[in-house]
Parts: sequence; structure tokens; C-alpha cells
Amino acid sequence: MRACTESAELGLFTEPAYTLHREASEHPLLLVCEHASRFIPAGLTDLGLSHEAAREHIAWDIGALALAERLSAALGATLLAANYSRLLIDLNRPLGAQDSIPAKSEIYDIPGNRDLDEATREYRRECLFKPFHDRLQTLIDQRLAQGRPVRVVGIHSFTPVYHGQPRTLEAGVLFGEAKDYAQRLLDGLSQHPVKVAGNEPYKINPLGDMTVPVHGDARGLEAVLIEVRNDLLRTPEGIDRWTDYLRPLL
Amino acid sequence: MRACTESAELGLFTEPAYTLHREASEHPLLLVCEHASRFIPAGLTDLGLSHEAAREHIAWDIGALALAERLSAALGATLLAANYSRLLIDLNRPLGAQDSIPAKSEIYDIPGNRDLDEATREYRRECLFKPFHDRLQTLIDQRLAQGRPVRVVGIHSFTPVYHGQPRTLEAGVLFGEAKDYAQRLLDGLSQHPVKVAGNEPYKINPLGDMTVPVHGDARGLEAVLIEVRNDLLRTPEGIDRWTDYLRPLL
Repeated sequence: MRACTESAELGLFTEPAYTLHREASEHPLLLVCEHASRFIPAGLTDLGLSHEAAREHIAWDIGALALAERLSAALGATLLAANYSRLLIDLNRPLGAQDSIPAKSEIYDIPGNRDLDEATREYRRECLFKPFHDRLQTLIDQRLAQGRPVRVVGIHSFTPVYHGQPRTLEAGVLFGEAKDYAQRLLDGLSQHPVKVAGNEPYKINPLGDMTVPVHGDARGLEAVLIEVRNDLLRTPEGIDRWTDYLRPLL
Repeated sequence: MRACTESAELGLFTEPAYTLHREASEHPLLLVCEHASRFIPAGLTDLGLSHEAAREHIAWDIGALALAERLSAALGATLLAANYSRLLIDLNRPLGAQDSIPAKSEIYDIPGNRDLDEATREYRRECLFKPFHDRLQTLIDQRLAQGRPVRVVGIHSFTPVYHGQPRTLEAGVLFGEAKDYAQRLLDGLSQHPVKVAGNEPYKINPLGDMTVPVHGDARGLEAVLIEVRNDLLRTPEGIDRWTDYLRPLL
């Protein structure tokens, strides 16, 4: 395979796959933001999407990075955040899953992901997916080797209207095995005037997810995803509010 | 995608992806044999391997199915066994891993897996990998929904000579989170005159394995792989011996 920075034809991924904040933190929390960015290299011309669609929730989790960065700063906790759009390859889906490199997302067709050849898929796997997950695995390995506790928390957001249906839910805690930790988060959030539920609006699937089952549950570590409706994260006040809610709970 | 039984060009997978034995068993044990078969459809001409190489350990885990079937019969436990060679797609590797559809295995090049197009890869994923893992997931789901305990045990074998080096180890128990269960198996096997070790000759990697991390550890279920050196499984007496060793322990 050609180097990630050297194939204009396949995408020219000159940015690193991820940004790591506060690597040396001693906080047990590892914050992860798989859908942090809507960045698509210019050579890929927004994968054929309209200017508007490429800035919509299908390309990234709007507000999730802002919230994750604020939580990382407030707690002094490590944050691993993706630098590329989930539309290139979804970091929270196993490789080869139908929606790993989606040809359709919600109501949007994604022309630039249709009929991709294996070289393009491999390029995205090797340049975007593997660096991110290898780094996350190494971060966890190093801490466990030092006898330190590790919790893995992904920060996500969801769209207030999905397939035309409005969603009244404001936040969700998605979990598999970390039932106690998830319940503590749900109990804590329920102290505030927010509509929150466990395993809504999505459920963790061990065959369909990455962060929670692979990096958390499969290693016996507490791991959850926090989902906040993205219309609540569009202002600095919204980010402040959710930082205040989550900070004492994580 | 074309139906799995209808594309001569891509492989013509007319056999089902797996065989399920004793589906209605009430035993908590779910036996899995991912590398049970060396079957490669005739149209794929042994993937360009020599007649001998296509019958070697790279194509399947020699003796593993015989042992798994004997254990299934002896315990009355369910067994899910693959019907196709691991060389078409490895059922114990995540999709998209380098060795999911290997172009090389140990010292053998696999011409029929070189430069595969995406249609061929998708065909193998959809016709071989997904049916197997969806069925295993459903089996587990159904039992958990009935409040029944579930343990997942993969039966594997390994080659006595690997990259030219002889192996003196006779059996291994590979585990991630199921440390107590693995230790009971190791203690039990150590009562017999066999050379056995934990996490040898391989180690479970949450990013590189399927059965143990995804179906077991990520769901909080006890899950291990049993590895037996394949020269010990080449006779009916060998199968009998290892069945007797393992039967009271599983």
C-alpha cells in the first residue's frame, strides 16, 4: 500500500488520523470521540455530497468534539479524537460491516462511497481506522500494565430528526456489560431536568460496534457511549450545561 | 449482491456456511469450530495452492471438528461448525483484518486470495462470515433471553511445526476475561500427562479475534479457545483421549 500521505488518487490523508489530548493524564477516564470531525480531504470533493449534506450529522457528531474537549479539560482526562469524517470510514463499526464505509446514511446517498475498489477500502482502513484503534489499544495496554484503572467513554451526538421523525429524548447512555457504571450515569443525569434513557436512541451490538465491546467489554473494562441530542450542543451555553452535568459523574 | 448459490464466477457457495448440531441442547456449553473444514468449492481450484497445501493446516484445523463433534455428542452440547475453509475467510478474525482473507499463511502464498476485488470480498463476507456469526449471536441471544447460562468454547488445533520450528506444547487454553474458567481447564488438563499452557501458542487480541472477545468477553460470558496440537488428533485413539480429558472439564 502507498503511504497515507502520498496517494492523491485515493484521498491524500495528509492529516494524522487522530488527535490525542492529555496523553500523560493520570485520570482513569479515557475519552474517545470517534465521530469528532467532518473533515474530508479536498481531493475527495465531499464524496459527491452537497455542501450542506457534508456538513450535516451524517458526516460527524455535531457538538461531540466540543463537549469531549471541555470534559477532557475539566477533568484533566485523556481524549482520543478522530480527525476525519465518519463517512470515510466509521471508527465505531467493525471493518467490513455494511456501514463501515456507508454508501447510504439515513436519507442521504453517498456517491463517493459507491462501488469502491479494494485499494481504496484498504487505504481507508490502514490510514484511518487502524491508527486510531491501535492507539486506543496501546493507551489501554500501557495503563493496565501500570496497574491503573481504565474506563472508556465515547462522546457522541444524535440528530433531533431521524428519518423524518422528531426525537424527544435528550441524552442516552449506551452500554453492554458496564451496567453498574451506566446506571450511575443515568441516575446522575436524572437529577437534572433532562430526558435521558439507557440504550436509547441506539443499542450496542457486539458484532456492530467497536469502542464499547472491543476496547471495553471484551477487556473487562467499564465502557459506555454518551449520546446527547445535537441541537443541545450548538451553543457554548449548551456545551457548558452538558459539561456540568457529566463532569461529576464520569 | 448476487445470491450465494448463484455466482459461479465468485465461488458458488452452494453448501450452507455452517452446520449446527444439537441446536435444542440445554447444556450451557456452546461449542464452536470456526476452522472445521478445508472445503473450497471446485470452481476456486484450491485458490491456486498445491493439492497438498490445500489439505494442510493452513486450510483448516486438522482434527478439530472430529474432537468438537465427539465432545458435542458426549456432553449433548450444541456445536456450530463452519463448512468452508478458513482460507476463503477466517471466521475467527474481524472483517478487514489483514489475515481475514489471507494472501499468505505461514510459509504458503495463496494465489487465489491476491488482489481480490471488492465484489469477491463482499461475497465471502455475506455468504460465509455473516451467516456464521449471526447464527452464533442468535443462539446466544435466545439462551440469555431464557435466563440460561452460556459458555462459548472454540475447538482448534495447531501445527506441530511452525515456520520450521517444532513445538513441544501439546495443548493451550486461550482466554481474555474468562481467567477463572481458563484456569479450571488448565488445572484439569494438568492432571493428565500433557504439556499444556495458558495463552499459548497464541494470545487472544480484542482487535484481532472474533469468538472469544466478541461473542464471549464483550457479553460477559465465559469464553475460551482450546488448542490441541494436530498430530495428537490424527487417530481415533487421539480423539478419544482428548475427548476424555476435556469432557469432564468443559
